[in-house]
Amino acid sequence: MNHALSFEDWVRAHGQRTELVLESLLDAANANPVRLHAAMRYAAQGGGKRIRPLLVYAAGELGDDSGEEKNNALDSAAFAIECIHAYSLVHDDLPCMDDDDLRRGRPTVHKAYDEATALLVGDALQTRAFEVLANTQCDGNTRLAMISALASASGSRGMAGGQAIDLESVGKKLDLTGLKQMHAMKTGALLSCSVQMGGIAAKLNAIQMQHLKNYSEALGLAFQIVDDVLDVTADSQTLGKTAGKDAANDKPTYVTLMGLDYAKKAATDLQETAIASLESFGAKAQALKDLALLVVNRGK
Amino acid sequence: MNHALSFEDWVRAHGQRTELVLESLLDAANANPVRLHAAMRYAAQGGGKRIRPLLVYAAGELGDDSGEEKNNALDSAAFAIECIHAYSLVHDDLPCMDDDDLRRGRPTVHKAYDEATALLVGDALQTRAFEVLANTQCDGNTRLAMISALASASGSRGMAGGQAIDLESVGKKLDLTGLKQMHAMKTGALLSCSVQMGGIAAKLNAIQMQHLKNYSEALGLAFQIVDDVLDVTADSQTLGKTAGKDAANDKPTYVTLMGLDYAKKAATDLQETAIASLESFGAKAQALKDLALLVVNRGK
Repeated sequence: MNHALSFEDWVRAHGQRTELVLESLLDAANANPVRLHAAMRYAAQGGGKRIRPLLVYAAGELGDDSGEEKNNALDSAAFAIECIHAYSLVHDDLPCMDDDDLRRGRPTVHKAYDEATALLVGDALQTRAFEVLANTQCDGNTRLAMISALASASGSRGMAGGQAIDLESVGKKLDLTGLKQMHAMKTGALLSCSVQMGGIAAKLNAIQMQHLKNYSEALGLAFQIVDDVLDVTADSQTLGKTAGKDAANDKPTYVTLMGLDYAKKAATDLQETAIASLESFGAKAQALKDLALLVVNRGK
Repeated sequence: MNHALSFEDWVRAHGQRTELVLESLLDAANANPVRLHAAMRYAAQGGGKRIRPLLVYAAGELGDDSGEEKNNALDSAAFAIECIHAYSLVHDDLPCMDDDDLRRGRPTVHKAYDEATALLVGDALQTRAFEVLANTQCDGNTRLAMISALASASGSRGMAGGQAIDLESVGKKLDLTGLKQMHAMKTGALLSCSVQMGGIAAKLNAIQMQHLKNYSEALGLAFQIVDDVLDVTADSQTLGKTAGKDAANDKPTYVTLMGLDYAKKAATDLQETAIASLESFGAKAQALKDLALLVVNRGK
């Protein structure tokens, strides 16, 4: 982290870097097929907190190396993780899944376009993530390690698998262990993968990668608990999506299982665990530490 | 090609090899989440002609090398291309796309399971394709070249893009040029990629890869023309899917644009072009040549 920058400035700079990377690596909105490419941009460029790319860049600051290849690897990782995240939201919003009309304060892709286009947008965003990683200007082992990490985190034993368990849990009484397992796959895996890809790009050693894993597992759980808290305490306009949806669907959440106060405390405890995991990195881990604070104290 | 084998034996042997590869590289049907993994197997192991894996293996016979790494690369490529093909069928059959109830003579995935599961099955099959390629026991450059080729062929400038154009073409009067472009993306790109990945695994040089490209472009067009002919001339039971669907949907086809007789002749001409492209490979190309005959003369 450049210590001339405040964390706010750091977030702004790396948020802008993410937008530039998305702008340059997504196909142009007027490239054929136009409707599909425009909808892919609508899905990926519609704002959002960009937490995952920020985690990539923050983890990338932990290494000694700071060459062009590392920067290329970080940009591709930031792009790819955001494409996978965006694809999952587009498919998750479809009528056969969560049937949501609103996302980030705008109509969801199938509302702004149509269901078939939304299906293809998700499919093609996933493909583009792997295509960009494979073609990054950096050494082959880094590219392959990032592709493998992203596929593992987003497939049937990761994000997609977590969504499958989530579907089956509606109306069922999932206990706290079951809920944690589901979220570790559905949301946690991709958050962990963001940090992991940053570490791969920075060529960290195995011990350092283990510290990062401890950080990201605590962060991922905290992230989801805060999500459940906000679903109860914030309104739709603030969230940019439909609030109170989980309760309406009788889905188990950390709030229903733990109670609101205990859920808030658990999130704060996990934030402390996450930050403690970074001790050996010293000042280089400042951005990751600040991101842990941001995740737990966010208002949407 | 082992010349002790007839082509029928070759197809049987490599079809069985494909089934074994699918069996071993798909997650077990009783692995968590069970419903998703069982449905992924239902989608990928439900038969089909396995044309794409056969093209991978046939192109793999063109090189000089025949070591274990080449075999690993070919098996991963056969697996990956079939996963991508299977995912595209599962998503294509969904109500918001073609709304098909029947595929390969069995209920489609969203009929046998449900729409949300079918959506996730397609998503996770795509991811698994890239995961397996990235983790193949062969040199990194081969893995990266295969990943890049597969992503390029299946994304928004390939298969998914072709499907987007296909969606827009319903009820429109697409001309022959437009129809060819659409099919080159929707179906041709993945067929070409099968041959290309076989060539990458066999470490062919640039001139040899160009011959393969000429072969596969002719083959891809022939394949689609025959598809359109069969949609008119075969019944649903023979096809294992709903026949006459294109005409019912007022979709432009080679038959409606060329007439049935001329379409049949065009397919035969393209088959000859494909075979002529392989001349420099000599006897090693026998399986690819026989596959071109199989594609054009198939009854379903």
